[in-house]
Amino acid sequence: MKTTEVSSWKSFGGNLSVYDHESEVLDCTMRFAVYTPPQAADGPVPVLWYLSGLTCSWANVMEKSGLQRAAAEHGIMIIAPDTSPRGEGVPDDEAYDLGQGAGFYLTATQAPWAKHFKMDQYITDELPKLVAAEIKNADMGKQGIFGHSMGGHGAITLHLKHPETYKTCSAFSPITSPARVPWGQKAFKAYLGPVSVAWEQYDSTELVKERQSRARILVDTGTADTFLEKELKPEIFIDACMANGQALDYRMREGYGHDYYFIATFMAEHIAHHAAGLKE
Amino acid sequence: MKTTEVSSWKSFGGNLSVYDHESEVLDCTMRFAVYTPPQAADGPVPVLWYLSGLTCSWANVMEKSGLQRAAAEHGIMIIAPDTSPRGEGVPDDEAYDLGQGAGFYLTATQAPWAKHFKMDQYITDELPKLVAAEIKNADMGKQGIFGHSMGGHGAITLHLKHPETYKTCSAFSPITSPARVPWGQKAFKAYLGPVSVAWEQYDSTELVKERQSRARILVDTGTADTFLEKELKPEIFIDACMANGQALDYRMREGYGHDYYFIATFMAEHIAHHAAGLKE
Repeated sequence: MKTTEVSSWKSFGGNLSVYDHESEVLDCTMRFAVYTPPQAADGPVPVLWYLSGLTCSWANVMEKSGLQRAAAEHGIMIIAPDTSPRGEGVPDDEAYDLGQGAGFYLTATQAPWAKHFKMDQYITDELPKLVAAEIKNADMGKQGIFGHSMGGHGAITLHLKHPETYKTCSAFSPITSPARVPWGQKAFKAYLGPVSVAWEQYDSTELVKERQSRARILVDTGTADTFLEKELKPEIFIDACMANGQALDYRMREGYGHDYYFIATFMAEHIAHHAAGLKE
Repeated sequence: MKTTEVSSWKSFGGNLSVYDHESEVLDCTMRFAVYTPPQAADGPVPVLWYLSGLTCSWANVMEKSGLQRAAAEHGIMIIAPDTSPRGEGVPDDEAYDLGQGAGFYLTATQAPWAKHFKMDQYITDELPKLVAAEIKNADMGKQGIFGHSMGGHGAITLHLKHPETYKTCSAFSPITSPARVPWGQKAFKAYLGPVSVAWEQYDSTELVKERQSRARILVDTGTADTFLEKELKPEIFIDACMANGQALDYRMREGYGHDYYFIATFMAEHIAHHAAGLKE
């Protein structure tokens, strides 16, 4: 076994387990969580990846979103990776929005980040192989992806780049054009260097001009989200999807914020969206 | 206004707010949280008190139990007080199970605790008066009470002492005979002095021999709870209820622990139990 189980809890008839493993791609020890629904006792179940936002780890969504209830109802396995490489040997920054906890689901090309920061490779290649080998009844032929904020950016970009792998996609309050907003510009400059075509491949709004998926992307964002106008800018992505024929259901939710109370409110609808798409 | 709102989030169509206020009874600043369901916009709704366990504050249950979904479904307001007086002027102990975070829902008589530690008076008298005066559409004629671990002890003892106030009662993994287990014995000795009749009034198992409520008390406890045999001892309370005619539905839940994943799994059933009792 290449994974070490560090915690396990029974939850809604299924099981939440947290694992450590040595990541070759990221060159550090990584931790991730898997919620296995009760249906996995009887056979393979679809796999839904949740990518978290800035500062988060596996714990935020597993502790605060209530996802286990809907996952158990629909028979979906949910995997929550960390948001960056971690540890003493990994570069970091004093700010919360760069370095550890802020991997932005990309492959860094600039020092000091390039050695460890390859979260897109980790999420799409190394971790799925580990899960396929070590987590029982994970049906890797039926995968979906979703996330929050920076993780919404990750989910949409990875879905658009790998539509045959991640057949369904949704997001809560996603950063959909990092190249145009402060969070993304700061991170891209540090990880990727000055503005270049490299930035476009990690920008959902630019990507969707080049390639569209056959799935309908589901997005919920709160109207009281304090990052709405500065960092999220829904209209840019909505316009690009409409202009390029990407099916999108972007819902503005009156009075909700950027927090897990908002996410918990609509979590069941997102899981139902993925369940419908993955069980077809 | 005697309360200061420190945070507020929209959640499941309702609102979660956190308040600070100056407690005269406890002689310190206290913080509590109120989940107001959407139905409170149209008129009074029942009030359900949740008492947390050792080390917890209002946040654990509001962040991790998913209670908002069921509270919004049934139209129940839920209030989560803190577990003890807090602050620099309040005595504390290095251990997690004594002092701040470990109020045990009693009135201390021993130094240095007696000045501040009066959590039963705070919960049953001062805080309800504040809520009645300042929280809109809290129907104080329809109150229930529940809690976890030390808070399960608090909920059952306060229900048995005030059955006309708290018409419904339930608990997750409660300490039902603190006078007989290490957590309770340590706390009672510190707060109440050597074993005496004073201990009995804060012990659910002793109380139920003297007085029974007309409600059916609902309890869920996990069979994999690491505190089961040493601190919780279900059989002592079950036997006392049976012998004395207290209606009790005590359910052992296979494989579940002492954690909020367990609580979240059965939270909706507990809220439905209270809703049924309070809406009669």
